[in-house]
Amino acid sequence: MDNRSIGVFDSGLGGLTAVKQIMKLLPNESIIYFGDTGRVPYGTRSKETILKYTHSDINFLLSHDVKIIVIACGTASSAALPHIKREFDVPIVGVVDAAGYEAVRVTKNKRIGIIGTTATINSGAYQKYINEYDSEIKTFEQACPLFVPLVENGHFDTKVTELVIDEYLRDIRAADVDTLIMGCTHYPLLKNAISRYMGDGVQLISPGEEVAKYLIKKLGGNLRHSPAAEQDRYHYYVSDSIESFEELGSIFLETKINGQVSKVDIEKY
Amino acid sequence: MDNRSIGVFDSGLGGLTAVKQIMKLLPNESIIYFGDTGRVPYGTRSKETILKYTHSDINFLLSHDVKIIVIACGTASSAALPHIKREFDVPIVGVVDAAGYEAVRVTKNKRIGIIGTTATINSGAYQKYINEYDSEIKTFEQACPLFVPLVENGHFDTKVTELVIDEYLRDIRAADVDTLIMGCTHYPLLKNAISRYMGDGVQLISPGEEVAKYLIKKLGGNLRHSPAAEQDRYHYYVSDSIESFEELGSIFLETKINGQVSKVDIEKY
Repeated sequence: MDNRSIGVFDSGLGGLTAVKQIMKLLPNESIIYFGDTGRVPYGTRSKETILKYTHSDINFLLSHDVKIIVIACGTASSAALPHIKREFDVPIVGVVDAAGYEAVRVTKNKRIGIIGTTATINSGAYQKYINEYDSEIKTFEQACPLFVPLVENGHFDTKVTELVIDEYLRDIRAADVDTLIMGCTHYPLLKNAISRYMGDGVQLISPGEEVAKYLIKKLGGNLRHSPAAEQDRYHYYVSDSIESFEELGSIFLETKINGQVSKVDIEKY
Repeated sequence: MDNRSIGVFDSGLGGLTAVKQIMKLLPNESIIYFGDTGRVPYGTRSKETILKYTHSDINFLLSHDVKIIVIACGTASSAALPHIKREFDVPIVGVVDAAGYEAVRVTKNKRIGIIGTTATINSGAYQKYINEYDSEIKTFEQACPLFVPLVENGHFDTKVTELVIDEYLRDIRAADVDTLIMGCTHYPLLKNAISRYMGDGVQLISPGEEVAKYLIKKLGGNLRHSPAAEQDRYHYYVSDSIESFEELGSIFLETKINGQVSKVDIEKY
């Protein structure tokens, strides 16, 4: 039994898809979320900068005495987590392990597609993780740098989105994969359009959903015995404007966030 | 006569379009450029965060004893410059003044379109500047948040770019403007597609070009008497990877940058 909070961070808002699943699967738990909205996006930055930002994000969450940390950011999970895991005593769970694990479990023809930010794809983290489980699995990677801006500007299922999906996913579809890892927390918001393009035979893996299931395994018995009072359950911290987080956050979380968001000067951590 | 350097900053690479013009019009001058590639983009952030970042960018350039500062970033010029101008002793020139001045000069029908990042358009800075000169001019604004990602991913003149241009510029074209301010340094890279869409009768204003002309006026006699040695002329600083700046920077500058780029920890300024 452990009544401390679960710490979750993402480069911005996308990690709230993971938070939503954690709330659903672990309703007793308290959550502290940090969204690095002042320095988002991570996916286009160098590995060195992603490491630096990931360090400060983890240090901030540790200052709140969390029992476990979930990296809900595909970029930080793939580009930084393998390098920093051993530097901290707290257990750290990333979306790569979670989504990679699920993809290996569901593929039948051993052909898995992986899409993500440029930094995620360049890291090769998914491929490495999957092939450690099963070296016979063939992976097909593609960076999709326009997907995040499309989502953030409401292009969920437009003609523009269709054209960009065709540009990015044509080769992966032709490679006859039966499983596609949507390796960035924004991508599930394009799920309808991606699913239509890939066809019914392709299973889409959402990191936000998988990380919650993975977290249960990692926590073992270290759960809360009963929920904290309503006002202490969920706390959100951001490095840019509170207002825009409250507004956009509700799209990802599908519920209102009000009065629970604080601003933090992340450059101090 | 003043042999000190000209300081130029931008949120990233786009400001190099201004640097290119300054090199051309003021070939004797030395330039120190800072590109905040570790915190780019500014255009989607809150005014408070843009102010904070602009402060640190200026402080960094001042640590190099520059004689004048050019804010080549449309967002920082419009959202921050009016508020911080009086805080510093050094003269500061922004792209808003430069491009606004030119737009007022060239419009015949007194109808000017303004496009920029969300923060630039929300600031209302162009409209304010233009109407101080001539209150009869009507302005038509539109934020174009997908233009920067399109440019950065090589979509200069594709079907996707055409559709997004139609989405953003339809109303401005219908408003019968004869002048369009491309209020973000990335946008001139879409010039062909924008010009075709708007038609021959519409004059496009590029901030990078205008700010160099405006700078000459502001510098007055404070020019260098002769050029510095080749290796001391141009210095570039970035807050993320040097390699990717050298690579992408050459697209904006249309010349190779090698060995003149250094990394700076901008969070310390």
